[in-house]
Parts: sequence; C-alpha cells; structure tokens
Amino acid sequence: MNSFGHLFKVSSFGESHGSHVGCVIDGCPAGLLLDKAKIQEQVDRRKTNQSSFATTRNEEDTIEIISGVFENTTTGSPITILIRNKDAHSADYDELREVFRPNHADFTYQSKYGIRDHRGGGRSSVRITAPLVAAGAIATQLMRTESAVKTTAYVSRIGNISILDRHNYLHFDLTTIDSNEVRCPDKEVSSKMIQHIEEVKAEGDTLGGIITCVIQQVPVGLGEPIFSKLQAELSAAMLAINSVKGFEYGYGFDSTSMKGSEYNDLFENSEKGITTTTNFSGGIQGGISNGMDIYFHVAFKPISGIQKKQQTVNRDGETVTIEIGGRHDVCAVPRAVPIVEAYTNIVLANAFLHSKLSKI
Amino acid sequence: MNSFGHLFKVSSFGESHGSHVGCVIDGCPAGLLLDKAKIQEQVDRRKTNQSSFATTRNEEDTIEIISGVFENTTTGSPITILIRNKDAHSADYDELREVFRPNHADFTYQSKYGIRDHRGGGRSSVRITAPLVAAGAIATQLMRTESAVKTTAYVSRIGNISILDRHNYLHFDLTTIDSNEVRCPDKEVSSKMIQHIEEVKAEGDTLGGIITCVIQQVPVGLGEPIFSKLQAELSAAMLAINSVKGFEYGYGFDSTSMKGSEYNDLFENSEKGITTTTNFSGGIQGGISNGMDIYFHVAFKPISGIQKKQQTVNRDGETVTIEIGGRHDVCAVPRAVPIVEAYTNIVLANAFLHSKLSKI
Amino acid sequence: MNSFGHLFKVSSFGESHGSHVGCVIDGCPAGLLLDKAKIQEQVDRRKTNQSSFATTRNEEDTIEIISGVFENTTTGSPITILIRNKDAHSADYDELREVFRPNHADFTYQSKYGIRDHRGGGRSSVRITAPLVAAGAIATQLMRTESAVKTTAYVSRIGNISILDRHNYLHFDLTTIDSNEVRCPDKEVSSKMIQHIEEVKAEGDTLGGIITCVIQQVPVGLGEPIFSKLQAELSAAMLAINSVKGFEYGYGFDSTSMKGSEYNDLFENSEKGITTTTNFSGGIQGGISNGMDIYFHVAFKPISGIQKKQQTVNRDGETVTIEIGGRHDVCAVPRAVPIVEAYTNIVLANAFLHSKLSKI
Amino acid sequence: MNSFGHLFKVSSFGESHGSHVGCVIDGCPAGLLLDKAKIQEQVDRRKTNQSSFATTRNEEDTIEIISGVFENTTTGSPITILIRNKDAHSADYDELREVFRPNHADFTYQSKYGIRDHRGGGRSSVRITAPLVAAGAIATQLMRTESAVKTTAYVSRIGNISILDRHNYLHFDLTTIDSNEVRCPDKEVSSKMIQHIEEVKAEGDTLGGIITCVIQQVPVGLGEPIFSKLQAELSAAMLAINSVKGFEYGYGFDSTSMKGSEYNDLFENSEKGITTTTNFSGGIQGGISNGMDIYFHVAFKPISGIQKKQQTVNRDGETVTIEIGGRHDVCAVPRAVPIVEAYTNIVLANAFLHSKLSKI
Repeated sequence: MNSFGHLFKVSSFGESHGSHVGCVIDGCPAGLLLDKAKIQEQVDRRKTNQSSFATTRNEEDTIEIISGVFENTTTGSPITILIRNKDAHSADYDELREVFRPNHADFTYQSKYGIRDHRGGGRSSVRITAPLVAAGAIATQLMRTESAVKTTAYVSRIGNISILDRHNYLHFDLTTIDSNEVRCPDKEVSSKMIQHIEEVKAEGDTLGGIITCVIQQVPVGLGEPIFSKLQAELSAAMLAINSVKGFEYGYGFDSTSMKGSEYNDLFENSEKGITTTTNFSGGIQGGISNGMDIYFHVAFKPISGIQKKQQTVNRDGETVTIEIGGRHDVCAVPRAVPIVEAYTNIVLANAFLHSKLSKI
Repeated sequence: MNSFGHLFKVSSFGESHGSHVGCVIDGCPAGLLLDKAKIQEQVDRRKTNQSSFATTRNEEDTIEIISGVFENTTTGSPITILIRNKDAHSADYDELREVFRPNHADFTYQSKYGIRDHRGGGRSSVRITAPLVAAGAIATQLMRTESAVKTTAYVSRIGNISILDRHNYLHFDLTTIDSNEVRCPDKEVSSKMIQHIEEVKAEGDTLGGIITCVIQQVPVGLGEPIFSKLQAELSAAMLAINSVKGFEYGYGFDSTSMKGSEYNDLFENSEKGITTTTNFSGGIQGGISNGMDIYFHVAFKPISGIQKKQQTVNRDGETVTIEIGGRHDVCAVPRAVPIVEAYTNIVLANAFLHSKLSKI
Repeated sequence: MNSFGHLFKVSSFGESHGSHVGCVIDGCPAGLLLDKAKIQEQVDRRKTNQSSFATTRNEEDTIEIISGVFENTTTGSPITILIRNKDAHSADYDELREVFRPNHADFTYQSKYGIRDHRGGGRSSVRITAPLVAAGAIATQLMRTESAVKTTAYVSRIGNISILDRHNYLHFDLTTIDSNEVRCPDKEVSSKMIQHIEEVKAEGDTLGGIITCVIQQVPVGLGEPIFSKLQAELSAAMLAINSVKGFEYGYGFDSTSMKGSEYNDLFENSEKGITTTTNFSGGIQGGISNGMDIYFHVAFKPISGIQKKQQTVNRDGETVTIEIGGRHDVCAVPRAVPIVEAYTNIVLANAFLHSKLSKI
Repeated sequence: MNSFGHLFKVSSFGESHGSHVGCVIDGCPAGLLLDKAKIQEQVDRRKTNQSSFATTRNEEDTIEIISGVFENTTTGSPITILIRNKDAHSADYDELREVFRPNHADFTYQSKYGIRDHRGGGRSSVRITAPLVAAGAIATQLMRTESAVKTTAYVSRIGNISILDRHNYLHFDLTTIDSNEVRCPDKEVSSKMIQHIEEVKAEGDTLGGIITCVIQQVPVGLGEPIFSKLQAELSAAMLAINSVKGFEYGYGFDSTSMKGSEYNDLFENSEKGITTTTNFSGGIQGGISNGMDIYFHVAFKPISGIQKKQQTVNRDGETVTIEIGGRHDVCAVPRAVPIVEAYTNIVLANAFLHSKLSKI
C-alpha cells in the first residue's frame, strides 16, 4: 500500500495532475527543531528543469507543512507536507486516455483498478516522490540529533558510460556530487555522460543508469532480523522507486564469483573499536549494521517516454501508433539521486528508532 | 521484525539449537484442503546431507502442523508449523562463545542485543528457513485453487561458473531442475559447477552464486503501489534470506546500458489477450504484474564458514586465531533454491489476496 | 498512533488551529462513484453553531478531496480529505499557554511530548474528527455497493435525563433523529434534555451523556477473531473519540446480572434464514456478526471546559485560578452522533473487506 | 486477526482440542532475565478445577518456552510459548458437530469460514488465553525492570451480588484477592457470591459478573493519540476476551449524569509532583496516562453452556433440542481475573516501549 516504515511511518498521496502531492509522517518524535530551508533544499535538488535533459515541466515545488509542527518544532503529532501542482498540462494527455504507452503503468493500472487517472501518469508518476524527499530530509534532521550518520548518493553509470569500479566510492570526493549536471563525482566520466545523453536526446531516445549510495558514520546495531534486516528494508525502498530494476549492497553480484577466503571481512581491534580490515560485506552482517560504511547500487532502466513513434494497443485492443506527448526526461537518473538519499534516510530513521528498543 | 506479509502473514520463530524452529501463518483463508505430502516434499528439498558439499548435520525435518487445520482443511485460524531440532551438536560451538567469527552475525547480534545464542548461529542460522519453506508450500496450494501460477527457481551461477545468458530461462526445461545436485538446468554447466565446488571444498574454501527465479502463468494485477509494488515485496523477501547480496528483475542491471527504444516492451493483441512482444520488463510495470513471465536473479555471497585458519577478535577485543568447527556447507546455493521459491510464493499469495480488494 | 483500520486504513492529521485538519484513506477499492454532497452532509451534521448549546466557533467545514478520485470515482489510490480551519481565534488561548486546564489533555501532552500546541487544544481537539466523518461517509458509500447495512446513532441520555430502556431501540422511529437539537428519538425526553442543558448552561456548567448506535441489515460473518473481533474494533474506535469513558454492546453491563438461561438467544429458522428469537447478544457471537442487529452504547463524560473559576497549576507547578476562555460546547453529545456513526462505518468497511478473504 | 500490540506483539494460535495452544511474542527487548516460576504461577491462577464451579477439565497447563530465551534471558528474538492440551475429551462433542449451540460461536464460525473445529469450541474456546496469560507475565517482568507499575484485578460483581461502590477500590486490601474462590476482596460479599453460584449451579444455570482492574504506580505519558489512546487499547484488549460485553474506565457510565464542575479533577502540586485532587478521570486524559491510578470495569455475560434443555437449529436448519455435554464453568468470572490482568499488562508493555520514542 502507500505507507513505508513501522515507527517513522511515511504515507504518500497524490497524483501528477491533481491539486497537490503530499505525505504524512506519523511517528516523528517531538522536540525536533526543523530547519525548513534545508528540507526545501533537498526538494529543490529533485526539481525539473535544472538541466537540458530533464523535463521542462516547471514546478516550484515549494513545501507547505500543515500539521505536526508548532513554532518550527515537531510536536509528536503527524507531520503533513503538501506540494502544489502548478504546471500540469493535462490536455497534453487527452490523446493517451485510451492508449497504453509501452513500458508505462497505463495497462497495469487500468487492468487492476478498472480506472486510471491518465494525466501525466497519475499515481504512477515520479512526481509523487517530491514530498517524500522532504520526508527524507526530516528523517535526516532527526538522526542528526544523536548521530553523525551521513548518506550520499551519486551517479556511477549512465547508459554505457560508467565509472571504473563502482564499489570504490573512497576514490571520490563525495562533497562535490552536485557540481555537475549528472551528479557523477568523476569529472572526466561526467563529461562523457553528458555528451552521451546529448547524443541520445538528439535521437529522441532515452537512457538509464546506476546510482551508488554510501552511508557513513553508521552506528552499530541498526536493522531488525529476520524480515526487517537493514538490507531488506533498503532494498524494498529502492525497488519502490520508479524505474528501479535492481539493488545490490556491498560487493553484491560481484561477490558471487569470490571465494569465502577472499570475501570474508576479518575483525580487528582498531582505534575506532571493533572494525573489519576489508568491507566486502558493505557494513551489514546478519541484517544488522556493523559500524563500517554501508554502500549499495541501484539500477535504473531507461526512461520509457521516448520521442519516437511506437506501436502499441488501445483499450479496445486495437493496434495504434503513438508518439508520446507530455514533457519527459531523457535521463532521470541524476534527478533520482536525492530520491535515493531520501528513501535511504527514511529507512535509517526507522532503524534508529527501532534500535532504541533492542535491549532493556 | 519477524513477520512477513500483510494478509497471508508468516511469523517466524526459533533458533538453530533450540528445541524447535517454526512459524505461524495468520490469514490463510479457510477451506483449503492441504496436501501435506507436498508440503513435506518442499521442506525435504532444503534438507542437509543431500550432496557431498552440504553440511552433514542430519535433520529429518518432519513438519508438524499443530493448529489451524481440521481434518486436513484450513479453518481460517492461525496455522502453526513446528520442526524439531534433533541433530544439534551444541558442544561444537563452546569455543566460539566469546569469539566473533568473520562475516557471521556474531558481532552484530552481540552488539545489538547484548546477548546471543551462539550455538549454531542461533537465530541468524539459515535453519530457521525450514518451516518457512513449508509456509511457502501452503501459499502455493492456496494460489493453485484459482490460478495456474508456477514458480521455478534454479542455480544459474556458482563461483565463476555461469550459464551463458541468465535472462534466457526459456532456453531450459524447467521441470528438470532437481535432476542434478546443483539444481542447474544446463547439464554441461552443472557438471562444471560440481567440479568447481569439489575443488574449492578440497581447499577448505567456499562459494556463492546466483539463483534465477521464474514465475509463469501470472495473472494481471498483482502488486500494490506505491510501497508494496510487486518487485519491492519480492526484493525485500529475497534480501531477507541469509547470504543474499543482490536482487534484480527483468533485465535488471543490464537494462542500465540499454536505450529506451531497445528496452521498451511493445504491447500487442495476441491470442492470450494484451501481451508484450518482448519482456525486458520482467512482467511487472508500475509495480503491478502485466501477465508476462516474471523473472529475477538473486546474488548469494560465498559461505562464511571456511575451513581455514582466520584471524579475528573476541568479546574482549583481543586478537585470536580460529578454525571454525561445526558442520558447514561448502556452497549453499543449491539448497537455497526451495527457499527462494517459498519466499516468492509467500509474496505472491499476499498479492493474490490483496488483488481481490482492488476494485468494487 | 494516528491510523485506524487494516484494509480501509484512515490516517488522521491536523490540529485545531493549524491551517487544515484532514485525513488519508488508504485501501478504498477503485470504481466507487462518490456522492460528494452526501459526504458533505455528514460533515455538516457535526458542525458547530447549530444549537444554542454548541460552541460558537463558526466553521464552514467544506471538504476538499485532493487525491485518489478521478472524475468523481475512486481510483484505488489514497484519498486525501482536507478541511480548512477558518475561524480559529488563537489569541483566546494565549493565557492558557503555561496553564494546565483541569481534565484537558494539556498536562499529559506537555509531559509526554515536552511541547504542545496549546491553541484550541491542538491535536487533542475534537475538531480533528471533522474529516474523519467524511471518511466514514465514504466507508458507508463503499458498503452500500453490496449491502443494505445501515448505521444509526442517537442520544439516549444527557446528564440525568434518559430514555426509559436504552436497549430498546425498536421502540423508536430511527429516521427522525435529526428532527430535534439533541438528536434523541423520544420527543418528550428530548424536550426535557434541552431544558436540562439550558439550565446547566445558565450555571456555566456542562453535561455528558450516552449515545446508542444501531447497525441494521448486517451480513453474517463480519469480524476477525481473536483480536479483531467486531466488538473489539468497535470498542477501540469508540474509546478513541474525545470524552468517551465507556462502551457496551448488546445487554452490556446489564447482562452481568442475568442467568444464562435468561440471556441465551435461541436459534430458529425464520423466513430470513437462521436468526435468534431474542437478541441480548447484540448481533455478535464469538467476535463475528450473526446477522441480527448490532447495538451498543457509548458513555460521554461532561465537557471539561466549564465557565466557572477553577483552581489548577501552571507549568512551574504554581497554583493558579483560571476561567477558561475560548468557545466551548455545553453538551457535545448531540454533535458526537455523526462521529459515532462515522467511526462505526469505518470499522464496518474494514470488516467487509476482510470478510472477502475468509474462505477460498 | 490474531496478533495484539505494535511493539510487544503477541500472536496467538491453537484450538481447544488441538495438540497445543500457544503464542509468540515478537518485540520483547533482549536482556530480560525471566522468572519462569512467576510466569507459571499466573498461568496456574487461570487453571480449571480450582473451585466447585469451574469446569472439571483437568489440565496441567505447564508452559514450555521453545524460542527466544537463552540461559533464562531474552535474546530479542521471538519468544514462543507452548501449552499442551492433555485432557481434551473430543468425543463429548461428537453430537454437537452439526448443531449450533445457543450463544456460542458455532453458527458464526461455520457461516464465516464454511468449516469449524467443533471440539470444545475450537478456536473460540477461552482455553487459548492460557499462553496469553504467560505473555502477560513476561510483559509484567519487562515493565518491572524500570517501573513499579502494578496491575490488580478482582471480581466486583457476580450475578446480582455486587460490592457497594465499584469505583472505590481504595476501600480494599488488594493483596488478598486470591484468598477466596471468587476473587472478591470484600469478605462478606464474596461469601454471598459463592452461595449465589452454588444455588444457580444447582439449577443447571450459569452466571456472569464484573471484573474491576486497577493499575497503580503508573508513569505519566503512556498512550499514543489519537487511535492508540491508552483507553482505546485497553478497551480493545478487554472486548477481545471471551464473554466480555462492556468496558468503562474512571467513572465510566456513571460520569454521564455528572456535571463538569463535579467531574473535573483539579490539578495540584503535591509531594508526588503534579497530581489531581480527585480521580474521576481514571488516570487517563487525552488518551495519555496522567500518573494517577488507572481503574476500569469489564462486564462478563453469563456462561452460555447451561445444563438445561434448549431448543436450537442444526446445519440443515432443522429445529433440534440439545442438552450441552462437555465440561463447563458455572461462572468463569473469577478465572478471568488473571486474563484481564495479563491483557492489561500486554497493553501497558506496548505503551511503555512506545513512550520511549515520544520525544528526542
């Protein structure tokens, strides 16, 4: 359904062309002094129209917090975040009312519900993630009251352009992610990515890619076996993001060709306490954080809304040829970076709260 | 925590060396005539001691259903499944009481809970999946009352031996999975895998691999946006399985280097109704099944319990050298095949029940 | 927390003097054509300023549905209802910022959360039930698509004026409830109640009372043992309403002095199928509806906000004398009638949806 | 469904004549050293065959804890409690297989599920509360690690014999509850109750009554508005107990005829901190405990299984006359005292855990 999290529970609502998109956070402890500018800043990172390859739909995305906060401080009551939809061009979608666009949710929503809001993808639009990015920013501010935990995501692949070793995030300066349009910390690679996107855009085609996410300064003990293991929650959150096709943490799929003796991270007693000499595990063992960095990779398929003629069927099952209108991204992976961070921080905030109840 | 599923809710309990492992299913509709032999058959597929590279712990794993079933038929009350632990050699673990084995859950459990049942891995042991396999078999029998849906998993990689194209499951006869010890449907590849395992076993080392899972005859409409998308539930289930490091569905990570025009599955009106000409999507669009086959891949790291000396630390933070006792698999991926199927079927049974409530 | 219901889940948000109060319904099936006028009608029944003894806060309470509905029909996506707070006089409460009003939630909220929105009771205000009444109206419309089930509540006691036998709802014409200000179906008694209220109002004092609720045309089979028994869900819903101190169904507390032979409802085969000759049980046996009418009583304490001087303490623990400002009801029981109905219908809608999953 | 509680979640399973009844506790923090004798002691208080008016079914009710506890200490993993059914006389029920006993759950279970385990009431039997009493004892031990909170229940009415003022628990020595068969702290009244039961037993009839429950030494701040208010959770728990028809807390139904000025509890600054001069509220304001004693009353209908001929119908709708076999209590209210206490303590343990997350 439409809620995520057991203790810091975020419930999403809204559609692409409704009056608002929004969410409710139930379970945020009282007494948190919110920095609203920092929340807006994260939402702004997700905004459209920031690069030549993003959709030209022009939304201000100003957040409004209509409950749960009194004199800038959380009260323990549900926090409701609203964002108005201002630049919806619903008429652009009239032709698509009866047509199932390839690889969109048109067919499945129509089949499951017998009705769908076809305008701009309706409920299946990535637009609904905007208020969830705000929720993620609140989750972050909550964790910061007691921990230095820090989540950073970046683009490690777009189409066939990739950084060399996606596990090696230590190679990069993670504070510079936003310094280029594609949010890739490797300067040379980022230039190639931008060029790749421009070429593909000229063809009327689209691209996907990979986002790598790193969590640093993680306390030991986050994650609730056996079904709320930290990696299970992270994975569920990532696969709930539009266009995501895969998740791996630590050495992930690459670990499958390693031997146990190569892969095992050995414990040692360092100045930071008990740590491991290597970190193929990606900071989680037995579903619980072990204090080392957590890193994972998220695969995004190419955007479905290509600017080419495609054959498909309409609701009556008739074959039709369409050319998709509306305003679409060529490659949405850079814009998904703050979404990945937000969903991660919501997972972490839940784990933080839960970990307070682990022992007497 | 320890429950999975919203409507067909499975709650796990038990430890490796307790008296029993078990689970409770809450939400199985009444009136299902259970075929207990078929349930046991699935549990038996997970058993130890069926190959030269599996642990020699010798458990009968006979299931006992102690509630919720009357005259072989489900009553709508919670179904409790118990499996007795008979061949636990707890003394084997005495030496490990104060030591953190590399890549095990010893350190994280001890840190999080301040106590752990160190015997055989305690709660973190894969042994607790045995009754969950039984729950998966009940989920399957439930779905069969109204659908021909069929889940089949197999091994597509062990260590550095892999089948050629892991997405191409149509190439294989999926009814022959159990005909060899490694549960790989490619005869030639399976021989190489067995040889690979034997070599690595001789070194005292271990291996991981990949399981591919295919769901056929899927009804349209399974999956609950936006946080219980079918892929999100499947992914959460898979990442909850011991040793799993990654999940991808459809073309997964490979889709990230495709263009939209290559990747888009075009709709057509075939004799089966509205279908797609290709299936890069892996049968799910917008979080909801579209009626095409669902296929996904699950990455397993190598087994942590290698038979080599390793350096680690104990609870006092002192450096110690250990050689792990107990009885361990060299490669547990083949034994994980019925676990992947079971967890998948539990996800599907939940989605089936939920889909009955989609529209008036 | 702030959600109610497992399948037709209603999440409340908002405070008395925030910009809006509202709720989100997650789980309403798609395809329900909403009659918005009828929803507004129920919300209007709860409005202030409809009698001489209700608060003079003057709110329009116009509902706005901002998601989940497309062309007046539910889409299966979350339905969000907003009601703007227009006539909040926050300044009236300035003096109460540091004072704990007797029998209000001031002290407990302050102690639990360390902060509270003191304006108009903040989160603890009955104002937050307004959008929940709308949710109840949607629940009703959902049930009507497949059942004639009908919920009617009325006032059976105010202060020391009571109808003769509160279990005997059959004595009254339940379609006339709204024909008088106190919503009591006994004309003579209602006049006495109004007189009683006027007298008490003149004293600056307040009153409580009892609401009786009857559910007719109930299908057999609603309720989910053993913790979601229908009476347990109804009771939890009622005790969540502001000022409610007690709940009983069927003969309730009166049944405690009956013998089994007096109390047992005997089954017979009537033209309506299997029914009972009497209905002391109140339509529920073993936690599941048996098809007979369900009736229950809900006790409301007198309103806390009396217009008399009272001694209390402030946040510093100092004794202070206060005279409560703001605008308060003398007796809110008549206004609670649509709230009781709404919460009941939300419980029923959940039970309806759940009952579709009882058997294969 | 069959679970209660959000954080200290108790899941019930089992039937009256199955092999076991049991429950699983998920969420009990690690590190709690269990006093197993004290748990058994509570379960023993609920046992049959302790008085002349209780059923003669003779069960040992020895609890077995099969998971979640290591060296007598909780590990944070699910705790499973089993109790074997030893003295089930299933043949006694053969005649009732097709018959609906008046006021039992026979008809409703059969209608809802299409099948029922008719032996001894199956799932609807009060026998399933035995392991829940053990869960309540664990909840108590958990709370005792940080609070002196103390729950005491007693019988305040049986049939038409009642103590004088049921709200006035302070009048009694609450440590003497178990000193007589009916668990009433008023010696004179208890004698009359016993005599009343014996008379009614001789007639082949049965009785109900009222249990009063008092919670002392309550911390301020328990309860989660607006749907998990402490009274809502207590009420839901009580109404889930077999035979319960009503719940009221504080002055309950009696408060409905009081004026606000009579009822309001005034705050004062006493040596115990901020307290109230009276306690008509029953220790809860705005859904949150205010530190005063919590007291409530629970109404039990008379036992349905009378020893008299009764007319009813069978599954074919034919009128039949039955005389109920099996072994039944004449009045089960005294045996329900530990059940009321246990359910209350489960509610409290959840509220305790939740309250740790109220503020940063």
